[in-house]
Amino acid sequence: MNYIIGIDLGGTYIKAGAVSKEGELLYEASSIPSMSDVNPNAVVGQIEKAVNEVKSKYKGDNLLGVGIGSPGLVDLDGGTVKYPPNFANWTVFRLGEETAKKIGGRVEVENDANAAAVGEFRFGAGKGLKNFIMITLGTGVGGGFIIDGQVFRGETGGAGELGHISINYDGPHCKCGNRGCVEAYVGQKYLSHRVFEQLKTHPDSLINKLIDGDESKLEPKVISQAADKGDKFALQVWKETGMYIGVAVAAAFNLFDTANLVVGGGVSKAGRALFDSIEETIRERVLPPLRPRIRVAPAKLENSAGIIGAAALIAE
Amino acid sequence: MNYIIGIDLGGTYIKAGAVSKEGELLYEASSIPSMSDVNPNAVVGQIEKAVNEVKSKYKGDNLLGVGIGSPGLVDLDGGTVKYPPNFANWTVFRLGEETAKKIGGRVEVENDANAAAVGEFRFGAGKGLKNFIMITLGTGVGGGFIIDGQVFRGETGGAGELGHISINYDGPHCKCGNRGCVEAYVGQKYLSHRVFEQLKTHPDSLINKLIDGDESKLEPKVISQAADKGDKFALQVWKETGMYIGVAVAAAFNLFDTANLVVGGGVSKAGRALFDSIEETIRERVLPPLRPRIRVAPAKLENSAGIIGAAALIAE
Repeated sequence: MNYIIGIDLGGTYIKAGAVSKEGELLYEASSIPSMSDVNPNAVVGQIEKAVNEVKSKYKGDNLLGVGIGSPGLVDLDGGTVKYPPNFANWTVFRLGEETAKKIGGRVEVENDANAAAVGEFRFGAGKGLKNFIMITLGTGVGGGFIIDGQVFRGETGGAGELGHISINYDGPHCKCGNRGCVEAYVGQKYLSHRVFEQLKTHPDSLINKLIDGDESKLEPKVISQAADKGDKFALQVWKETGMYIGVAVAAAFNLFDTANLVVGGGVSKAGRALFDSIEETIRERVLPPLRPRIRVAPAKLENSAGIIGAAALIAE
Repeated sequence: MNYIIGIDLGGTYIKAGAVSKEGELLYEASSIPSMSDVNPNAVVGQIEKAVNEVKSKYKGDNLLGVGIGSPGLVDLDGGTVKYPPNFANWTVFRLGEETAKKIGGRVEVENDANAAAVGEFRFGAGKGLKNFIMITLGTGVGGGFIIDGQVFRGETGGAGELGHISINYDGPHCKCGNRGCVEAYVGQKYLSHRVFEQLKTHPDSLINKLIDGDESKLEPKVISQAADKGDKFALQVWKETGMYIGVAVAAAFNLFDTANLVVGGGVSKAGRALFDSIEETIRERVLPPLRPRIRVAPAKLENSAGIIGAAALIAE
């Protein structure tokens, strides 16, 4: 049997799994620390461990290659990863080449947001679409652009930074240095903090009971719990969040002349209230010729998106 | 001698000229009405007239082809122009094909903003750059994106609508239906109106004297006249205008991973005060990896940009 190993390289953990050529997750290894606090070689050592664990389960089978989704800017030449945030002693490192030296065979590296988009393109909500934009709503707001059937990478592989479209030039400060970035409105911590502040003027909201005054408990799923029970304030939060996202996406649609959106990441689990607001906002704000083409779909690969997206780099 | 005819098709006039393969304007015909109030065939008739006027000056010479820069969405297949604003009885029309039937030879059609970008790419401020964004500051705010040495057209040829990036989700209404579009801040009429309103609280500004209470006299060149004489309010207007532009451009830079900007159009003649503010804003707001690569340059083809840009479609 042919299989691919997908590696989801995170700042804290490495997730690894075996994936079929058709994008099914066959096996998921236990997460191991990425050792991002040491240096790039330590990280390669951990990737090797993860690969070996998966390989040990597929001894008689044919490994087609290893795909790695990595934070940071990725240059396809040598699978070079530049300045991954939260990785110590790592400026510019040929991660693909160095990993291939250890484990042999084909190794492909891509930025994690781009890999997620490739996963959806090959196996998920973007299947059959030549052009779409994937937005990932988590701690940050990531973007991966598939244009004409390929990742749109830009000059250095850094394209698609949807989270840093400013939707308000005078808005809240974003850690990137800009103001009013959509990430500074809907990135998970920003979102939780804003909602926590707004709760003061919404004492009747169910969210108050669910978090009992503790901001750290104010996760998106708590807002969704309240919204599912019809809590007006919680529904309003998702409506507002969808509006912020829709404004940024409409700008990207106008620039790229595409109208397909795939929404992934934890916050995207908020459900209908959020999705309806995103779609409605785009419809109101995008240029008229694009309106009939608007499609907003939830990502399909959700829990294993990192592993399957990385594996999709090899399936190409 | 080889030459190209460039046609700048406007809603009111057609401008036409002979251009060398090196992008020099050899001869400019007198403007003739575009007859956009009649129908597409009338427009083709006018284009034919303009072409014949130019041809009559170059009887012994070799016409390489005719390039047309047109408003509206352009599909390269048949040089099809869709829904050009302010053209009557024109939905979808194969302008290139129909023009070629009348005049013979090679005819290429491209959207006017894209043609301007191609002109700068071949012969102007974008020469030698593989990637740049051209912004055109006039009545509207247009965009043309050169990515990897080619016009970035998107799914239907409508890509690059830089003017309709919302820089404030709660901002002024734009005629496109969105709110806070950069065009709704810096498009010429919006700009003039905003400045006229602000003059009420700036009675000392020289602009008051120059327009004598008449809003229709408040053109960008008047603001520049005042700014050139050190008028603080006028300088502040350009600083603010540059900030609005810079916010939108920074978003586009983050999405496309390029950091080259070419600025054309009437408003761009405002000079240093405007350019400095655009560049400073981009520098403050774009993602850190892009900052060292920022280049902001004025367009070079200015007055004949429409004709030379159209001719550049043939020079390619």
